[in-house]
Parts: sequence; C-alpha cells; structure tokens
Amino acid sequence: MDERAPTTVAEVGELKLIELVRARVGVAHGTEVWAGDDTAVLTPQSPALLLTTDLLVEGIDFDAAYYNGGDVGWKALAASASDIAAMCGRPSHAVVALGLPAATSLQWVDQFLDGLLDAAGRWAVAIVGGDISAAQEITVTVSMVGRPRSGSAVLRSGARPGDSICVTGALGGAAAGLFALRSRMPQTEPVDRLIGRQLRPTARVAEAAILAGFEISAMIDVSDGLAVDLEHLLDASDVGCNVDPGLVPVDPDISAVEGPNPFELAVTGGEDFELLFTIQEDQVEAAADALGATGTPLTAIGIVTSTGRRIGERSLDEWRQQGWEHLRNP
Amino acid sequence: MDERAPTTVAEVGELKLIELVRARVGVAHGTEVWAGDDTAVLTPQSPALLLTTDLLVEGIDFDAAYYNGGDVGWKALAASASDIAAMCGRPSHAVVALGLPAATSLQWVDQFLDGLLDAAGRWAVAIVGGDISAAQEITVTVSMVGRPRSGSAVLRSGARPGDSICVTGALGGAAAGLFALRSRMPQTEPVDRLIGRQLRPTARVAEAAILAGFEISAMIDVSDGLAVDLEHLLDASDVGCNVDPGLVPVDPDISAVEGPNPFELAVTGGEDFELLFTIQEDQVEAAADALGATGTPLTAIGIVTSTGRRIGERSLDEWRQQGWEHLRNP
Repeated sequence: MDERAPTTVAEVGELKLIELVRARVGVAHGTEVWAGDDTAVLTPQSPALLLTTDLLVEGIDFDAAYYNGGDVGWKALAASASDIAAMCGRPSHAVVALGLPAATSLQWVDQFLDGLLDAAGRWAVAIVGGDISAAQEITVTVSMVGRPRSGSAVLRSGARPGDSICVTGALGGAAAGLFALRSRMPQTEPVDRLIGRQLRPTARVAEAAILAGFEISAMIDVSDGLAVDLEHLLDASDVGCNVDPGLVPVDPDISAVEGPNPFELAVTGGEDFELLFTIQEDQVEAAADALGATGTPLTAIGIVTSTGRRIGERSLDEWRQQGWEHLRNP
Repeated sequence: MDERAPTTVAEVGELKLIELVRARVGVAHGTEVWAGDDTAVLTPQSPALLLTTDLLVEGIDFDAAYYNGGDVGWKALAASASDIAAMCGRPSHAVVALGLPAATSLQWVDQFLDGLLDAAGRWAVAIVGGDISAAQEITVTVSMVGRPRSGSAVLRSGARPGDSICVTGALGGAAAGLFALRSRMPQTEPVDRLIGRQLRPTARVAEAAILAGFEISAMIDVSDGLAVDLEHLLDASDVGCNVDPGLVPVDPDISAVEGPNPFELAVTGGEDFELLFTIQEDQVEAAADALGATGTPLTAIGIVTSTGRRIGERSLDEWRQQGWEHLRNP
C-alpha cells in the first residue's frame, strides 16, 4: 500500500479531483443550483443574456515556464470577463472545462483555483460548474454568461462617421511583458508592472459599467492588438478610420524594455484587454471625467470616417498584418 | 508564390479559419446576435437558465482512428444536449471552443461542422459563437444553455424512498460499440448499431420534453455508466436503492459482440446518454405510455430505499468501482 499523499491528478483520479475542485468553488445562494448537478440552474435578472467562451492552451496561449497555475486561472477568467465588458455588460456566472496532463501536480490545480477564484471575486463572477478530462497539455476553456448594464448590449456594428474612437488605459504593456519574460529581463519596477499586465490582466468590467451611462455606438476589447481589433469593429460597422499615431496611449513602462518599438507594440501587441469604442465626439470629455473614479484614463485617438482606414501615414491593413495569429505558419 | 489551395488549418490561419466556421453556423434571427461580436446576445424566454460545459479530448474521450470529424462534432453537441435533457430541459444555444493541431486538415474541420450542425439541428440548438486555438491534440468544448421544460429544473436531489427508479432505452450499447471498434469486428447490422451508439449517441431531449409532464423527483443522464451515475443521484438525494438485475435493460445488440459480459457493460459502460430518473410508482405506466410516441422504451429497474444500495446480490459500490475514470492510474 502506498501511504504517501497523492501529488498528481492521476493519483487522485477524475471523480475525486472533481470533488476537490467543487469544494473550492462555493455553494449557490437563493434558488440557483451551481456545481454538482447535470447543469447549473441560474436565474438571470435580465431579458438579454450575454454568452462567450475562451480557450487558453499551454504552449500557445501561455508558456508554463512563465505562467504558474494562478496566472493561468486568473487570465482565463479575465479574458471572458473582458468579452462581457466589451458588450457594456456585467459578467455573472462561468463554467470551466479543464484538460490536464496526468502528471499535473495537485499544487498546480490548487494555484489555478486560487487565481481563477481571485479573478472571479474581483469581477463578481460565480463559478457554477465545469468538466475535467485528461489531455497532453493544459487547456482551459472558460464559458461565461452576463447581462447588459443598460437595456441592450453594445455591439461592434454601431460606429458612425464622425464618432470619436476612444480607448481605455494604455496599450502594448502586455506584449512588452511577454517580451520581458522571454528575454529574462532583470525585474525592475516597470518591468514587473508589464509582466503583471501579461500574467494578470485587468478586465475593464468597472469601466464598462460607467461607460454604459453614455452613448457608446460600438465597442470591442483589445485582445488581438489595436490594429486587428479596430479592423473588426470597422468591418462590423462598415466604416473607416483616421487614427492619430501621436494620440495612441503607449504604455509608459515599455520604455524600460530595450528592443521592441513601443509604438509598434501599442498598435500590434495583443492581450491588453482595454476597451476600444466609438462615441459621439461631444461626450468624450464627460466619459473621461466619469472614468476618472476608476483611475483608468480614457484617450480619444481618432475619428470614424466613411472610407479609408489609416493610422497616421500607414494603412490599418499594413499594421494589421504585423499582428499576431495562433495557427498561421511563420 | 504557392498557388495550391490551403489544406490545413495552419495554411489558412486563425482569423480566416474563424471566418470559414462563422460562414457555416448561420445568422441570428429576431433581436439575437450570434457569432461575430465579443459575445453572443441571447433572449431566453424563461426566468431559469440552464448552463453546462463538456470537454472532449482526442486520445482520451475519442480515438481519431475510429472517430471522423463528423462523429466528434456530433458527440460533443450530444453530450451537452444530454446534460440539459437530464434537467428536464430544452437546449437552445451553444458556444464551441476548438483546440486544433496545426496539421489538422480543412476537410476534418468541415466534417466536424457537418456533424456538429447535424446534431444541433436535430435538437434545435443554435451555435452562437466560439473560440479557436492551436493545440497538440484536438479538443472540443461545447458550452450550452437551455431552459426547463416546466417551471423548474429536475435536480438529482429529489428522490424519495418508495419512488421507482426508471431508465430510458437500453444500456451498454455505447461501450459495446467501442469494444467492437477497438477489436475491429466485422460490421454486421447489430455491430453497426452499437458503433452508431458510440459515435453518434442520441441525447434524450424529446423524451425529457414528455417526462416533464410527470412528477419526476430526480434525474441524471447515464454518461459514466449506470452504477456511477445512479450513485451520483442517490448521493445527491441521500437515499439508497434496490435494483433488480433482471430488469436492467441490456442493449440486445450486445449479444452480437463476443467477449464482454452484456450485463456488466449495461451496469458499468458509459456514454449511453439514457435518462435515469426516479418517479412515483403509480406514474410509471403512464410515463411509459407517453414515451411510446418517441419509440423509446421506459423500464422500471428498482426502487429508492432509505439506506443500502444494491444491484441484486452486489453492492452498488462494488459495481461502481468497475466504472470508468479518465485520469486514474491503471
């Protein structure tokens, strides 16, 4: 008999592992049913329901050399919460599907749950169910529901010529953080902040709640980079843009990183999870003032046009082609 | 320049692949928004929402030697639809997260969508969004929402001593089908049917709709095998059982398969996706009659007791330990 306590998921087995996870994720209140039945039973208080799913794969979306379990759990939750925020929505419930190699340590799983639950607590999301299977690499799929803050969700498709194009926070920091991790830079304070933006990004849920009070015509979150995500918004709205490169809010910490061009990172780097949106020009100042309460700056970077898509001298298309895609051959 | 048409997902790239998928999954009607924004926007017509997620991993949950893309798509959809059915629910919308090796052929993806959409059509589920990432093996996560057929969902926890324990259809067929595939049995008609139960299982959505008209006290779907799933239901209800082995509906096609014991497969084999439920004894006949319209038999296999859990001479626990777990060491 092996009296040693189990240390890997293979040693405890699937059913016991599910019990361990379930004991961590909390119990439903009121009339809801969370983990432990065939499905969760939720009571959304809204006629409109937002639903999204995000997949993170080890070696593709995160490198286990830099990401501990807590970082993976946090980021998986944050990515879906950011999708809900990008509809001017409020996330409420999530289910989590985990693919785990048999040799995964229980300590990793525990850290993962720490990070997942920390992020869930930060954005008031209940983890209400999930699934676990063995896999060759760690995969995490977070599927999340939420509801619009105001009556209806803000789509990508409502931008009109003349609207201002705005973005929260600063751009390029998450990509610079990844660069710093890969090049094993000495961890100064600004480098630490950049690494934090890569490993523990902030979903702009609180900011979306405030922006819901304004006439936002279209919105998306910056997950694949400003150029790529701006193009998505413009495509959906069938409009163009004229962005002033001098106005793009480049993360000031990037100057601590030698190598990459800060402006290029701000335009092509992904995973900042800032909100990119269009709004009537005369509402920009009031929206920026209102966001002040969160400490998150708001920057108008250009205007929506009927045709043509430019960031300064270059076309959006040229910038977009520098962006980042998972599956493409190098 | 390479003028050859792309044949793998790596050759088309992530964004183009997402476009290809989106073109297949259909356009929202009414006020809903499906694929193409940060989240789907749904308008559920019920105060209660059911939410579930199911993960299938190549090499663990399916073997690509037997499963073509269409089988994987069908089964992933069916597994989640079965979860919703097991709440006496009606599935409505799903999102799909796909992990794909770079070398995956576009033909595989096309077949996957065929199977996924066939199953979605069968059970009236709209595919409203998804995510794609590269991965070492194929992984599919289907997350699904639905609503209870009657006012409230049927949980696992409502079984009371004296209730009849019933199961739809027949058991063991999916496990026998897997055995037939692995042993490369000659494909006779009964073997083909068993293989069909393994590759293209039926979610009992129509049956759940009929059962919603009766006083079902507790329900679960048989995904991990009768013994394991019955124990889940009994645990949730804090009751026991006395199952008559002579009443367990063993799939008659299993007799065409030499080797495994048909009764053992019926009790321990998973993935039949039949509904296992408890109901007041005097309603069993009427429920069976009502189900007749679907062609699916209903069998009372035993009764709920206060304590003790038996299938004939053996304890449920002994049977359960023969069941199947993904992550456990052999």
